[in-house]
Amino acid sequence: MATHRFTPTHYHTTLGPHEPALRIADGDTVITTTVDAGGGDASGEPVTPGGNPQTGPFYIEGAEPGDTLAVHLDRLAPNRDEGFSKTVIAPWIVDPWDVTNLPEEKRARWRIDREAGTATLIEPETKLGAWSLPLAPMLGCFGVAPPGRQAISTATSGPYGGNMDYAGFVEGTTVYFPVFEPGALFHVGDGHAAQGDGEIVGTGIEISFDVQFTVRLHKGMKIGWPRGENDEFIFTVGNARPLDQCVQHASSEMLRWLQEEYGLDPRGASLLMGMAVKYDLGNVFDPAYTMVCKIPRRALKPFWNEDPFGKEEPGNFGS
Amino acid sequence: MATHRFTPTHYHTTLGPHEPALRIADGDTVITTTVDAGGGDASGEPVTPGGNPQTGPFYIEGAEPGDTLAVHLDRLAPNRDEGFSKTVIAPWIVDPWDVTNLPEEKRARWRIDREAGTATLIEPETKLGAWSLPLAPMLGCFGVAPPGRQAISTATSGPYGGNMDYAGFVEGTTVYFPVFEPGALFHVGDGHAAQGDGEIVGTGIEISFDVQFTVRLHKGMKIGWPRGENDEFIFTVGNARPLDQCVQHASSEMLRWLQEEYGLDPRGASLLMGMAVKYDLGNVFDPAYTMVCKIPRRALKPFWNEDPFGKEEPGNFGS
Amino acid sequence: MATHRFTPTHYHTTLGPHEPALRIADGDTVITTTVDAGGGDASGEPVTPGGNPQTGPFYIEGAEPGDTLAVHLDRLAPNRDEGFSKTVIAPWIVDPWDVTNLPEEKRARWRIDREAGTATLIEPETKLGAWSLPLAPMLGCFGVAPPGRQAISTATSGPYGGNMDYAGFVEGTTVYFPVFEPGALFHVGDGHAAQGDGEIVGTGIEISFDVQFTVRLHKGMKIGWPRGENDEFIFTVGNARPLDQCVQHASSEMLRWLQEEYGLDPRGASLLMGMAVKYDLGNVFDPAYTMVCKIPRRALKPFWNEDPFGKEEPGNFGS
Amino acid sequence: MATHRFTPTHYHTTLGPHEPALRIADGDTVITTTVDAGGGDASGEPVTPGGNPQTGPFYIEGAEPGDTLAVHLDRLAPNRDEGFSKTVIAPWIVDPWDVTNLPEEKRARWRIDREAGTATLIEPETKLGAWSLPLAPMLGCFGVAPPGRQAISTATSGPYGGNMDYAGFVEGTTVYFPVFEPGALFHVGDGHAAQGDGEIVGTGIEISFDVQFTVRLHKGMKIGWPRGENDEFIFTVGNARPLDQCVQHASSEMLRWLQEEYGLDPRGASLLMGMAVKYDLGNVFDPAYTMVCKIPRRALKPFWNEDPFGKEEPGNFGS
Repeated sequence: MATHRFTPTHYHTTLGPHEPALRIADGDTVITTTVDAGGGDASGEPVTPGGNPQTGPFYIEGAEPGDTLAVHLDRLAPNRDEGFSKTVIAPWIVDPWDVTNLPEEKRARWRIDREAGTATLIEPETKLGAWSLPLAPMLGCFGVAPPGRQAISTATSGPYGGNMDYAGFVEGTTVYFPVFEPGALFHVGDGHAAQGDGEIVGTGIEISFDVQFTVRLHKGMKIGWPRGENDEFIFTVGNARPLDQCVQHASSEMLRWLQEEYGLDPRGASLLMGMAVKYDLGNVFDPAYTMVCKIPRRALKPFWNEDPFGKEEPGNFGS
Repeated sequence: MATHRFTPTHYHTTLGPHEPALRIADGDTVITTTVDAGGGDASGEPVTPGGNPQTGPFYIEGAEPGDTLAVHLDRLAPNRDEGFSKTVIAPWIVDPWDVTNLPEEKRARWRIDREAGTATLIEPETKLGAWSLPLAPMLGCFGVAPPGRQAISTATSGPYGGNMDYAGFVEGTTVYFPVFEPGALFHVGDGHAAQGDGEIVGTGIEISFDVQFTVRLHKGMKIGWPRGENDEFIFTVGNARPLDQCVQHASSEMLRWLQEEYGLDPRGASLLMGMAVKYDLGNVFDPAYTMVCKIPRRALKPFWNEDPFGKEEPGNFGS
Repeated sequence: MATHRFTPTHYHTTLGPHEPALRIADGDTVITTTVDAGGGDASGEPVTPGGNPQTGPFYIEGAEPGDTLAVHLDRLAPNRDEGFSKTVIAPWIVDPWDVTNLPEEKRARWRIDREAGTATLIEPETKLGAWSLPLAPMLGCFGVAPPGRQAISTATSGPYGGNMDYAGFVEGTTVYFPVFEPGALFHVGDGHAAQGDGEIVGTGIEISFDVQFTVRLHKGMKIGWPRGENDEFIFTVGNARPLDQCVQHASSEMLRWLQEEYGLDPRGASLLMGMAVKYDLGNVFDPAYTMVCKIPRRALKPFWNEDPFGKEEPGNFGS
Repeated sequence: MATHRFTPTHYHTTLGPHEPALRIADGDTVITTTVDAGGGDASGEPVTPGGNPQTGPFYIEGAEPGDTLAVHLDRLAPNRDEGFSKTVIAPWIVDPWDVTNLPEEKRARWRIDREAGTATLIEPETKLGAWSLPLAPMLGCFGVAPPGRQAISTATSGPYGGNMDYAGFVEGTTVYFPVFEPGALFHVGDGHAAQGDGEIVGTGIEISFDVQFTVRLHKGMKIGWPRGENDEFIFTVGNARPLDQCVQHASSEMLRWLQEEYGLDPRGASLLMGMAVKYDLGNVFDPAYTMVCKIPRRALKPFWNEDPFGKEEPGNFGS
């Protein structure tokens, strides 16, 4: 359970079977950095071409296709004082007859006050003025090498993760990925200081990050889509288009999870989802969209209100 | 600003230009009841054929096409001790290759404890046992008469409202509908004691309700889709298929709202949405699906964290 | 088997349970006229508000819910010398980032030469000049009353037919509709002198028609979606959104047809479709889109090439 | 303009920046073979793992990103006497509530009579008996290396081509691909002896092919999506999900083509498409679906009926 301090020297704009940047063991922790979506590092200067460049990949010893890799996001922290964003909602997010009402794209600059925990709009000038919002640092794009020796652009996403832009990928979250390549080959990048659901303007507040994560290998545990958990929810992630298909992927994955790990029968799992499920919207900007299917931990108790935020142990249902 | 106690004698399973059940004035309050989705009233006995039968329609004096009708949901309360639900996720909510793993549909019965505020599963037997969840009463289907003298099934939804099954339509919410017919013709029904997002098993916990609502007429205020507000959010509702199109309708409507009432310019509105928007999932069971686009009230302040839950007045941006 | 000459005096812009305009018997033929989509009759003058106004409805004696109504399109003939169209592809038919490249809508006028069988562009001026194309008269919108006492705009479509805008609805075609209301209540309108697939500019060449059709009632034959046949193909029609769902409706309907009437087993029906199916695109302009699933008649023979265009009798497979 | 006889020694199941198998010049012809989707060659024996293995890639000297590669399909001929297929329509092609009515998958064997030009079902036994259909050899999966150094599975498709399964990719067709990598890196495989639209059972009649093709390089001609032409039509190909998005890609590409090469103004191009466009359905089995947008050559004349099948020269409109 070593801790590795890793300074990246190059980056990838595909998730693929790239040469490992570092080999680590099950249980290890990595402290590293990520550049922003445009390739800028902590100094704000571009050090690599843009397009969600990824730090890594990290080769997890012993990981083989059919296993599951758990990544705990220990720390996600903007490491400079300015971020940037786009400003205009994508034309496929508004009604087609409204597209001509959209203004022209203009890059925004944001002052990041890490002490106060705020992002404040510097430019362009709008009626928002010097609008300020709370920092809510999250990872836009991260994941493992896809199946079949593919190398897939960090602009999109799939069962292997990728550019999911889910605002719930924050510090303290554990994310599970299916392993498709030996070593899993975990990539990480694309930090956002804050972001609305859907990344509908095409960016969050893009910024370089200090990142710390810890990996756990679940040998022989097979999952179909990324899963995650935090103090309040367990969740599954579907990446596809249209959103209806994301809902299918995420819901099917949750049905399986509830049966495999929480001891529910098919009808019980289905009924619990019917009355307790929540869905969040991830990316709707990129080629594959993202929907997240969540179950509150307290719904995983026979009595919902009891111990609402306690961490559940599997298998607590039924006699 | 009269208060009407209205006892329904018949119900409608379309939203349409039906004969008004009661004529009320701008500002009036109505205290009435709704039957459950299957047509059962407070006694649990069927009094009308099923399919989300609607109480009403209520004719609001002075309402004309091009106006907006605001409906404040004053009170939504289950009025009996048992509800029912379906138990199996719809086949279009899971991966197509998983459909054959779904169990057969079986009706569930739920004991409603109005004092304790819980719903508890009576049957069928599953590994959930006597699973209990908190009541969260909401309206599944309500709205005004659609445009063009249409009469549209209460199984679906559109710009006029309808079967949106959004878990956010709870007591205390104000909902805005575009007026398409003289008198608006407000219909209300389909109460749920609780429901997960999406109504993915095809029902919430279906039950008859005591309902109280108050109407306000906004003459000459033209909206394109239902809007709503509560203490924490303003929101817009898009009803269509696939979900991508719901996102478009709801997002376009929010863009307009932020400009028309909150004094934002196009770029400011777009940028605020980009960083502050939230989306909720409504119905994904019925012919038209529903997505809700939300903006936190506190994002409508120059400084997000200031007075977080205070009710905003429009036009507080800019110089 | 009477022949009725019917002169419409009013029109409907919903398909619904309207007062019958004429009562006819199984086997009867109707000779009538339809106005154009804008409400203009053979004189070119508007006689009713626009929006695909329908002639009818025709009440077919003995038709009951659960039956099937067959309508043979005996004659579809433009009955004046000028039609009109829109000129610009709908913004939802091009890439969202291309919408701003579309020109502004401008109405086109077309000279209809019924002798020569051509439509020639009169205006606006474009690089097409006086472009001429062959007449291919078809019905855009027709169908029966929808289920559940609904009245649904002639702008859209469903299991009951409606605004399908399929270029294959030409003279000589037989179309089958499920019956939802007593008398079926057949409506007909929206003739096009010609139209590309999809009606992507929002209109065909819109014109008033002389129409002759003959009805046949199939008692107790239950279908789920419109079906049709011509000399070369049998086909099924799915109306929904997105197109993927249209494909599902039409394909499921064809699977049923092949089993119920052509004596195929599930695997045989599936395999035949896999190797012989064709799909055509109907409307992609309106709220519900349309896809048509076709099987060539000659594929319904043990040997495909034998008697290629002969009319098949059901049940010619197997031992 | 050399002719190369190329015998493949290995195959790829991704389209990507692989080591060139052969370098050829603009104008050159290649005579080669492809294995079937399962990796079987002319002997019927598997020589490589399945999944649409590709022959190539072929490096076209001088091809650079931003150019267009034209590939004329000179000859596509099954080179053995037996093919195989799946037999059951995919569960996402039927209504979700019909999925449970589908039979279990079973592999079919087909006797290919190259003299008679027929494929005849050998097994499994169905009510189709020894059903026979005409050979219509086509390429399922072919294309160039995708943009951004990606390597993408031959199970799917994109702007670079891939697994489009369009029944129109037959002998005599010219297909145009955008060039993303130096040398274009053309891959070819996945021959079908015959196939219905959509490849809805997941395969055509899969078989190894003798293939001959000739390449032409169009320096500086930039296209967005694959294009094609045959004697009767010019066409564009959109690959995405849902089908609605395929329609957008293909239609936008056609609008550009009509303006760039046929001298039309935006309104003229739009109007011509409105009245003359046809759409065909390609693959609806794989992650990305395919729609093809076609314009009849004779519609590209001022008078449609004149010289109906003559090959058009661009720019014949207007003054």
